[in-house]
Amino acid sequence: MARNRKTRTADGAQTTGEARRFRRQTHPGDAPGILVPPPDSPKPELTVFAYSADQLVEKKLAGVDELAPLRQRFPVVWLNVDGFGDTAVLQRIADLFGLHPLAMEDVVHVDQRAKVDDYDGTLFTVVRMVSFPGDELETEQLSLFLGKDFVITFQERPGGDSLSPVRERLRRSSGKIRRAGPDYLLYALVDAVIDGYFPVVERFGDKLDDLDSAVDDPKNRRTMTAIHAVRSGLLQLRRAAWPHREALQNLQRDTHALISDDTRVYLRDCYDHVIQIMDVLETYREMGSDMRDLYLTAVGNRTNEIMRVLTIMSTIFIPLSFIASVYGMNFNTERSRFNMPELNWIYGYPFALTVMAATALGLVGYFLRKGWLR
Amino acid sequence: MARNRKTRTADGAQTTGEARRFRRQTHPGDAPGILVPPPDSPKPELTVFAYSADQLVEKKLAGVDELAPLRQRFPVVWLNVDGFGDTAVLQRIADLFGLHPLAMEDVVHVDQRAKVDDYDGTLFTVVRMVSFPGDELETEQLSLFLGKDFVITFQERPGGDSLSPVRERLRRSSGKIRRAGPDYLLYALVDAVIDGYFPVVERFGDKLDDLDSAVDDPKNRRTMTAIHAVRSGLLQLRRAAWPHREALQNLQRDTHALISDDTRVYLRDCYDHVIQIMDVLETYREMGSDMRDLYLTAVGNRTNEIMRVLTIMSTIFIPLSFIASVYGMNFNTERSRFNMPELNWIYGYPFALTVMAATALGLVGYFLRKGWLR
Amino acid sequence: MARNRKTRTADGAQTTGEARRFRRQTHPGDAPGILVPPPDSPKPELTVFAYSADQLVEKKLAGVDELAPLRQRFPVVWLNVDGFGDTAVLQRIADLFGLHPLAMEDVVHVDQRAKVDDYDGTLFTVVRMVSFPGDELETEQLSLFLGKDFVITFQERPGGDSLSPVRERLRRSSGKIRRAGPDYLLYALVDAVIDGYFPVVERFGDKLDDLDSAVDDPKNRRTMTAIHAVRSGLLQLRRAAWPHREALQNLQRDTHALISDDTRVYLRDCYDHVIQIMDVLETYREMGSDMRDLYLTAVGNRTNEIMRVLTIMSTIFIPLSFIASVYGMNFNTERSRFNMPELNWIYGYPFALTVMAATALGLVGYFLRKGWLR
Amino acid sequence: MARNRKTRTADGAQTTGEARRFRRQTHPGDAPGILVPPPDSPKPELTVFAYSADQLVEKKLAGVDELAPLRQRFPVVWLNVDGFGDTAVLQRIADLFGLHPLAMEDVVHVDQRAKVDDYDGTLFTVVRMVSFPGDELETEQLSLFLGKDFVITFQERPGGDSLSPVRERLRRSSGKIRRAGPDYLLYALVDAVIDGYFPVVERFGDKLDDLDSAVDDPKNRRTMTAIHAVRSGLLQLRRAAWPHREALQNLQRDTHALISDDTRVYLRDCYDHVIQIMDVLETYREMGSDMRDLYLTAVGNRTNEIMRVLTIMSTIFIPLSFIASVYGMNFNTERSRFNMPELNWIYGYPFALTVMAATALGLVGYFLRKGWLR
Amino acid sequence: MARNRKTRTADGAQTTGEARRFRRQTHPGDAPGILVPPPDSPKPELTVFAYSADQLVEKKLAGVDELAPLRQRFPVVWLNVDGFGDTAVLQRIADLFGLHPLAMEDVVHVDQRAKVDDYDGTLFTVVRMVSFPGDELETEQLSLFLGKDFVITFQERPGGDSLSPVRERLRRSSGKIRRAGPDYLLYALVDAVIDGYFPVVERFGDKLDDLDSAVDDPKNRRTMTAIHAVRSGLLQLRRAAWPHREALQNLQRDTHALISDDTRVYLRDCYDHVIQIMDVLETYREMGSDMRDLYLTAVGNRTNEIMRVLTIMSTIFIPLSFIASVYGMNFNTERSRFNMPELNWIYGYPFALTVMAATALGLVGYFLRKGWLR
Repeated sequence: MARNRKTRTADGAQTTGEARRFRRQTHPGDAPGILVPPPDSPKPELTVFAYSADQLVEKKLAGVDELAPLRQRFPVVWLNVDGFGDTAVLQRIADLFGLHPLAMEDVVHVDQRAKVDDYDGTLFTVVRMVSFPGDELETEQLSLFLGKDFVITFQERPGGDSLSPVRERLRRSSGKIRRAGPDYLLYALVDAVIDGYFPVVERFGDKLDDLDSAVDDPKNRRTMTAIHAVRSGLLQLRRAAWPHREALQNLQRDTHALISDDTRVYLRDCYDHVIQIMDVLETYREMGSDMRDLYLTAVGNRTNEIMRVLTIMSTIFIPLSFIASVYGMNFNTERSRFNMPELNWIYGYPFALTVMAATALGLVGYFLRKGWLR
Repeated sequence: MARNRKTRTADGAQTTGEARRFRRQTHPGDAPGILVPPPDSPKPELTVFAYSADQLVEKKLAGVDELAPLRQRFPVVWLNVDGFGDTAVLQRIADLFGLHPLAMEDVVHVDQRAKVDDYDGTLFTVVRMVSFPGDELETEQLSLFLGKDFVITFQERPGGDSLSPVRERLRRSSGKIRRAGPDYLLYALVDAVIDGYFPVVERFGDKLDDLDSAVDDPKNRRTMTAIHAVRSGLLQLRRAAWPHREALQNLQRDTHALISDDTRVYLRDCYDHVIQIMDVLETYREMGSDMRDLYLTAVGNRTNEIMRVLTIMSTIFIPLSFIASVYGMNFNTERSRFNMPELNWIYGYPFALTVMAATALGLVGYFLRKGWLR
Repeated sequence: MARNRKTRTADGAQTTGEARRFRRQTHPGDAPGILVPPPDSPKPELTVFAYSADQLVEKKLAGVDELAPLRQRFPVVWLNVDGFGDTAVLQRIADLFGLHPLAMEDVVHVDQRAKVDDYDGTLFTVVRMVSFPGDELETEQLSLFLGKDFVITFQERPGGDSLSPVRERLRRSSGKIRRAGPDYLLYALVDAVIDGYFPVVERFGDKLDDLDSAVDDPKNRRTMTAIHAVRSGLLQLRRAAWPHREALQNLQRDTHALISDDTRVYLRDCYDHVIQIMDVLETYREMGSDMRDLYLTAVGNRTNEIMRVLTIMSTIFIPLSFIASVYGMNFNTERSRFNMPELNWIYGYPFALTVMAATALGLVGYFLRKGWLR
Repeated sequence: MARNRKTRTADGAQTTGEARRFRRQTHPGDAPGILVPPPDSPKPELTVFAYSADQLVEKKLAGVDELAPLRQRFPVVWLNVDGFGDTAVLQRIADLFGLHPLAMEDVVHVDQRAKVDDYDGTLFTVVRMVSFPGDELETEQLSLFLGKDFVITFQERPGGDSLSPVRERLRRSSGKIRRAGPDYLLYALVDAVIDGYFPVVERFGDKLDDLDSAVDDPKNRRTMTAIHAVRSGLLQLRRAAWPHREALQNLQRDTHALISDDTRVYLRDCYDHVIQIMDVLETYREMGSDMRDLYLTAVGNRTNEIMRVLTIMSTIFIPLSFIASVYGMNFNTERSRFNMPELNWIYGYPFALTVMAATALGLVGYFLRKGWLR
Repeated sequence: MARNRKTRTADGAQTTGEARRFRRQTHPGDAPGILVPPPDSPKPELTVFAYSADQLVEKKLAGVDELAPLRQRFPVVWLNVDGFGDTAVLQRIADLFGLHPLAMEDVVHVDQRAKVDDYDGTLFTVVRMVSFPGDELETEQLSLFLGKDFVITFQERPGGDSLSPVRERLRRSSGKIRRAGPDYLLYALVDAVIDGYFPVVERFGDKLDDLDSAVDDPKNRRTMTAIHAVRSGLLQLRRAAWPHREALQNLQRDTHALISDDTRVYLRDCYDHVIQIMDVLETYREMGSDMRDLYLTAVGNRTNEIMRVLTIMSTIFIPLSFIASVYGMNFNTERSRFNMPELNWIYGYPFALTVMAATALGLVGYFLRKGWLR
């Protein structure tokens, strides 16, 4: 259900899940800092990467106690925790690394917007990972703590994160990642999360391309719903991405003692990527609006077209029917020569037909001249 | 009536109460600082929580005089006042604690927006509690004074506040609340008020979910009113919540001597909650707008659909009727062989019926090819 | 006509007067600072309140010369001038108190927005009084000069100002007004002007309440005009009120030597009132927009409703008429047994009627099933 | 053509000229600072006002050389140049007074927005004059250079500027203009330009007043175009006026050595005028939008009205015609007593007419009760 | 395909290419700073301009090694690189001039927005060139590095840049370009790019002018698509131009050690040009919106017009047909004198025709009086 809470389809029923998205688990009366994880959160899985320039230990931990020797041996330790199902474990990690209770509360309340909070001795960062498995946009909160010799990351559930490229680079010791400190690791993780937005954005671009060809066909009833779904999805994506802007500006500019000047340059680059994503999302939204307008115009034109053609057709027949009705009247022609003498006229019928034809042609001509028949 | 003044339904007649909401009770000629409470405000009820880390006295006060000994005995005294019906009592409290006349005026004029004012020696904070009893959104002003050794809170009426969690924590001495100073109590109270927004916001989320399924059914006439009501309610909620942003930023950032650095960290967390609420309200409003658009599109489509089908039906019959009218004309067939010879033709009637059928089929075919029948 | 220039109805013809509102009286070639009052401005009436904590002199002045002895006797002198019809008098006052020519120019050009200008030795403030006599919103410019021992106020015309509460408090020596300096008097006057907005805002609230019940009735043609009038009035009010925000912020924050710290606290309170007014006006405007939307939706729905019902009715009769027309054809039944044998059939007429009834019922059933009859 | 480039009608064809307005004359490969005036710019006309408190020389110059003796004799020299047809003359003026090449480039590229640029030793200001000769809004760029002892103004063409009041005041030595320095002259010139906006704004006010009475008449087809034209004109005016705000703020606030504190007070006044103009333009634009909405509503109402009345009329006749058609059927009454016995009934015809009348009355009654006939 | 990626038509199918525009080439797992150019990027072509005030060497380089002697001989070296097809070459240039890996990554990821990044010792600037070959708007990224004695520019492909005017000025030694340092060259290049926007903007102005005459003709179906295309094109152009504003503000204001005060003045001028472009684009967009509104109004008016005329025509004939139907009824006149005596009346037929004519005239008169026939 934790999963359900953040899952919503991007293709129609989006609004339902969205509205229900927002839940706070604080029990009335709890003091702040008491950890209340989502009810069905999986048991925490602990994975550690401890490394120096020339050595790397990667392993799953059975317990928190295994961390202490690694911290002594290596200059940088990255502990990743998947799932919050055991509060005691979380609490012990918090105690061991000196993580602030309020930050821990934010870790388990997985509705946080991206942000950076400076606590004494640790820097707490929240970012939001996005993915697009199947037909649904999913977001997952990634909470990062940066300390002098460690980075700790918390994820809502195992699997499906955007951090594999970083793990791979650590293993292959590619670039400067193993030679740099934990601040560079923080950058690499945040950058990987931001890079994870690009394929998702691209998915929306593809959807827009598909819609673009459908937008001229007013008969397709699903176009409106599809446009609406894309717009909703873009809105969601925008809401997830937007706060990263401020968070990264904060990371890059402010004088956090834990972040070196060299890493700041990299964070500025990451910030530029966020700006780029926002820029594309903005453009996509405007394209979505334009498509909706074009589609509605096409629908409106079609209705007008139909009504116009049909009304013109009716209008032509109405006087003809009237003429026919006149000669259907039963006035007694024998009583007086004024009473419908046409009926007894030799050319009465041809004359009547001619008048009708002339009327019809006259009207068609008038409409043509007015430009009403296209 | 004080209650009525702030009560308005969220489900339709909202606008009525809302427009009348705004009243100022200043009598012309009164100097500022003269207390003029709402006319039917209940008599003030005084409740006090006086505590230290290991002791707690909680009692209802019969008079203001009982406060002095408590203040001497305990490092923190929280006086809560419900109702403003007796100006003399209010004035004595103000004198006793040195509360500024302008602040007291704001206390009884219960239309204040959330704000923080620094008076010499006391910090005056206004926040707005929301609740959703029955089908109506209610807001109530909570005024807080923070002094060196006290917090005083004023509420418009007894009962129905959002502060029970704080009382409970004081009683159970849960967390650090009893060990911390009055600034932490101020934080705890404000935080409880902000937390009170979450269930109300959730209520609106549920309403939106309900509407979401109704939005595709253009026959439901109440949908429009319901959407409108939700949008109005969200607007109200947003107006109540919005100024807390600035107030909390003020509390957290500015250098108020009465607030310790440690409490500031907690206030920052509270500020984040306000941001989160604003974020969700914003999303809900956009969802509301989208629903309105979808509903109006659905209604428009239905009307177009009906008109189109009916017009097509008429258009098919109009030429047929014309043909029938023609053969209803009374031209004298005996007078001339030009006059409606079809009438005397052996296959005249079948021929006429065939022409009609052919015309109808031709038109239907044309409309089908044009794609006008769906 | 000066009166006409600022008078405009809030109930319909508002736009006319509004557009013509804007006039500058500068004659080409005049140097700045030359006083050119509105052409039909009344003769100035001078009233003075000179007071100390225990004495008060209130009188109408015959000439400017009577001021000098009062200034010597009293710590605070408040001179109020109504009307600008005699430039010489204005000029003598300006010379006597050292008022800057540009400020005096602003005094007589009564289209100023609210503002605060610091001239050497005097503080020049413009605020805008509003009133709602009859059915028309009126605004009047109040210009205030604050000096070390005086306040001078200029009004466009005698009577109808918002300052009576201040006069009353001076006479009754209510509150601290007589004990405080001229800066507190400035505050009291500005506060009285701002307080004068509240009843006017309330009037609009009442109008909105009245409209709220009319908005569901699409037959009422005047609703649209009335909504439009309220919206225009609110726009005007907003334009008058808005600049006070900046002016009061300026008064309260900036370091004007003439304003004491104590008075600054009061001005902050006054600033809060302006914010409150803006907030309510904003809400009213949104309510006005919502009402317009609701009314237009109601009107649209009614039109759709009518058209739908009528079209359905026509559509049911069209096939019936066609059947009747068919049996009105004159094919000669004697010539052949193919020619309308129904006419000679014993049950021909009942059969035809049955077919018609069946057709009608079939169509009604179809429409019912489609949900087109409500 | 230079004239054409900036001329556009405010009454309909505005968009055409507007779109073509934007031209840059830089020839590829030219270095910045090379003067390329508009192709058909008139020959420069040089006029000089050289003055001190008690002397004034005003004359047209034959050549640039006549300036040197005037600069020596008088503390302030104002050189006005109309037309850029001779680059050599412009270049010599630039050399003589030390005007920066980039500023000179801006002088001849007459599409500049209002701005203030500080070059070493001279202050370069651009403002935009507006006028409304005939039915067209015209704008003309006025470039001003302020030096220690001179003001130089450049205009695109002779005649039609807003500066006559300043010339007149110089001649009459009215106010302090002759006693003050060149910075006050700069102020006086800019103020005259700003004052020139007032009558133009008033023109638009008059147009809006005229439209206001036309807006209720949906039959007037030209109203829409006229509203559109006024809105376009206001947009243009707003674009011309808007940048003056920043320019004047710059002049008034920044510490330009060439501007004295005393003149700064006057510039603040001028800045207030710009704010006032923007304020009125904003109001006019909202009025224009409101008018458009009202007009479109009126047009829509009229169409609805017509359609409704006509549809009701048709709907009443359709059942009547059906009844008549029924009794026009030719079933053989002789064959059977079931076949249309009404035809042979004595009161058949009166009965049929009665049924028709009853049907008609019934429908009218129904429509009346439904409130569909108004 | 690299070319295709950035090519999109401005005349209709714009949205397609646009949505697909956004691609990131980072391979998962790559460390930042690894160069991954677009897949089909052409081989880099190296061109160098090395110059002093009196000497200029311009040549195509075969390899990077030829640069060293030129850097020693000349105070300024401008290396231009077209195409990124050979990563090794790019890497060697980066190493030779000390270009930061992140900046090099931005060089080959050709989706950057205009920006300025200060790296230790070099200033990295990105601008975006626009051109309008055929009927398509194309943009190309130009990346510039400024060092103490060099400027390096990177372009996506050879040919089609906006820099020819600068090359020409270098060759002709026109203006101060050869005498100034590399910062002035940077300015000249950026200014040339900005100047390249003007003809493109003018193209859109011409398109708007063309549309302006078409906008009144509701029969032209292509107008809507054309307006939409122009609006899309303007949106794209605006997105390309907008970030230059911030970039140039950064260049001009910030204290980059590599840029002299003298050049700053020139950059301010360039900044003014960007503002001017934004201003015109804004106006064009508003004109586009207005045109769309006008066109939609014209289309709506035409439909209303047609429907109104046709409905009026029908309405006139409906009562006439009814009268004819009445006299087409077959009541037996022989049976009773109540049964349709008009049929046997001598003037029956003329009477019936007269009634019809009178009805028709009455209706036409009514419609005329109501003003419904125009």
